[in-house]
Amino acid sequence: MTVLSHPVQPILARTRQQLLPVLSAAIDRLDGPLRHMCGYQLGLLELDGTPTGRLDGKLLRPAFTLLCADATGARTADVLPAAAAVELLHNACLVHDDVMDRDLLRRHRPTVWAHFGIGEAILAGDALIGLAFEVLADREHPAARAALSHLAVTLRQLGQGQERDLRASAETEVSVADCLATFAGKTGSLFGCACRFGALFGPAGAEAERFDRFGTDLGIAFQLADDLLDIWSDTAVTGKPASDLRARRKSAPVVYALAASSELRDIYATDAEFDDATTARVIALIEATGARAWTEGEASARTRAAWGEIDGLALDPAARGELAQLAAAILEAG
Amino acid sequence: MTVLSHPVQPILARTRQQLLPVLSAAIDRLDGPLRHMCGYQLGLLELDGTPTGRLDGKLLRPAFTLLCADATGARTADVLPAAAAVELLHNACLVHDDVMDRDLLRRHRPTVWAHFGIGEAILAGDALIGLAFEVLADREHPAARAALSHLAVTLRQLGQGQERDLRASAETEVSVADCLATFAGKTGSLFGCACRFGALFGPAGAEAERFDRFGTDLGIAFQLADDLLDIWSDTAVTGKPASDLRARRKSAPVVYALAASSELRDIYATDAEFDDATTARVIALIEATGARAWTEGEASARTRAAWGEIDGLALDPAARGELAQLAAAILEAG
Repeated sequence: MTVLSHPVQPILARTRQQLLPVLSAAIDRLDGPLRHMCGYQLGLLELDGTPTGRLDGKLLRPAFTLLCADATGARTADVLPAAAAVELLHNACLVHDDVMDRDLLRRHRPTVWAHFGIGEAILAGDALIGLAFEVLADREHPAARAALSHLAVTLRQLGQGQERDLRASAETEVSVADCLATFAGKTGSLFGCACRFGALFGPAGAEAERFDRFGTDLGIAFQLADDLLDIWSDTAVTGKPASDLRARRKSAPVVYALAASSELRDIYATDAEFDDATTARVIALIEATGARAWTEGEASARTRAAWGEIDGLALDPAARGELAQLAAAILEAG
Repeated sequence: MTVLSHPVQPILARTRQQLLPVLSAAIDRLDGPLRHMCGYQLGLLELDGTPTGRLDGKLLRPAFTLLCADATGARTADVLPAAAAVELLHNACLVHDDVMDRDLLRRHRPTVWAHFGIGEAILAGDALIGLAFEVLADREHPAARAALSHLAVTLRQLGQGQERDLRASAETEVSVADCLATFAGKTGSLFGCACRFGALFGPAGAEAERFDRFGTDLGIAFQLADDLLDIWSDTAVTGKPASDLRARRKSAPVVYALAASSELRDIYATDAEFDDATTARVIALIEATGARAWTEGEASARTRAAWGEIDGLALDPAARGELAQLAAAILEAG
C-alpha cells in the first residue's frame, strides 16, 4: 500500500490523534508480553518495549467510523470506543493472518510471530479480539448491545473470508465469484462494520444498515484497488514489488486471468519460484486477458453502489466531502 | 481427566441436553470448513462432517452456570446463551492451546490443527470466540452488556494465563506464585465467569461478583486436582499416563518440587525425553519433597475459600446440594 494522497492527510492525522489515547489505554489493560506484543502491533511500542508515542497503520477503518459519525451527527465521544474496537479487531486479524501466511514483515518491521513466536502471536491476536469487545462494552449507550452483537458477526465474517482466502491459495480452481466473496468477508465486513458504527451511536442509528452496505462495497473496491496496486504500481513507493503475485496469492486479476489464459495456468501449475523474468511474463499475460480493465471496472461499480446506499440521506456537507475524499484516496492508493 | 463420579452424571446429562440445541444453532451460523471444524471440536460432527447427535466434553463450566442460576432463582432460558458462550470460549481456548502445545489428540480424537492444519485451526478458534460473543449478544436482557463486557475481560484473563503458561514451559525458574497466577488466569477466570453468569441474569445479579470469586477459587482447585491426577492416578482411566509430566509441563507439584530438589532440577536441566524409568524416578522425587501434600492442601484451601464466598447467601437448597456434588466431583476427578 502506498502513501495516501495529500488532501486526506489531515483526516487521518485527526483520527490518529483521537485514537492514540484510547488505544494506549486499551493495551494498558494487558500485562507482560501480551501488552508488549499488542502495543508493538499497534505501533505504540518498539520491539524492545520502549513507548513510541505514535500509532502505526493508516487507521482507515476508524477514520471511516469517525467521518460517518460526523456526517450523521453522532457525537465523537460516543463513537470513539467503536472506532477503537474496529482498529483492534483489524490488528487482531493482521497478527493471525501473518502467522497463517508466515509473513515476516509488516509496516517495515518484523511481524509479531516472527519476533515473539507462533504461540505468543496466537495469544496476542486473541487478546486484541478481547480488547476490541472490552473497549466497546465499556461504554454505556443504548446502542452498545447491538454494536457488540455486530462486532461478533463481523469477527465471524472476517474468519469466513480469511478461511476462503486460505483455501484459495491451495486450490487450483478459484472463480471470480469466490474471489469477490472472499473480499466481502475479509475486507468488506470490517469496512462495513466501521461505517455502521459511525451511524449507530447517533441520530441516524436506524440507517446503520445502509452505512454498513456503503462500507462493505467500499471495502471490496479497496481490496480490488489493492490487488491492482500489487501488480501495476511503482514498486519503489509500495516497497513490495508484486509480492502478492510472487507469493501466488489468488488476487482478483490473477483469478480472472487464470480462467482466460492457458499459458498462465501452465505457469501456475509449476512449483518453481517466480523469478523476475517469469514475474514480468505473468504480468503481461494477466494484462492481455483484460484482467486489469475488469478489476478496475469492478472497483468502479462497487464504488458507485457504495455511494448509492447513502446518497439519498441528509448528511453534513463538510463531513460528506471528507468521506468522499477518503474514499477516493483509498481507491487510488489501494 | 477421568470419568466423573456417578451422582453428578444426571447434572451433566441435563446440561448436555440443554446445550445441544443452543450449540448446534451456534455452529450453524458458520459455513464450510469453519462450521466443520467448530462442530467437530464440540463433538457435534465427526471428522468427515457427519452429525453425531451428541456434544463432547464434560461441560463442567456451563453446568456451573446452570446450577448457579438454579441456586439463585435465575431462569434457565435467560442463562442458557451465557452457558453456551462459556462453553464456546472454553473450546476456542482448547483449539488454540492445542496448536501452541502441538497436542495431537483431544478427547481421543485428532485435534483440529492436527487434521485441518494450523492456519485453519487458528481461524476455528477465532470463530468460536466470535460465536461466544454472538450467542451472548443475541439475547436482549438488562444484564447483557455487563455479561458481554465480562466475557471480554475473561478472554483477556484466559490469554494472560495461557501466556504465562507458555513462558513457564520455556523458563527454568517458575515460582509457586507464578504457577497459581497462571491457574487463576487459564482456569479460574472462566470458571469464575461461568458462575458469575449463573447469578447475573437473575434476582441475585448484585451478588454476581461473589459467584465469580466462588468459581475462580473452585477453578484453581480443579486445576490443582488435575495436576495431581496427571501424576498420581490410574493411567488406564485417564488415558494419559503422566503425559503432562513427560511433556515437562510446569504443573503445581512439579514447580513446588523443583524448588526443593536439586536432583530433580538436574533431571529437568537435561534435554533427554523422560523414559519410563526416569518418569518413575521423577515422580518419586516430587513426592519426597512433599509436593503432593502441598498441592492437596492448596486445593482444599481454595475449595474452602470458594464456599466462604457464597455460604452466607440464601440459595435454593436442592440446587445448592447439586452444586456441592459437582464441586466435589471435579476435585476428585481432576
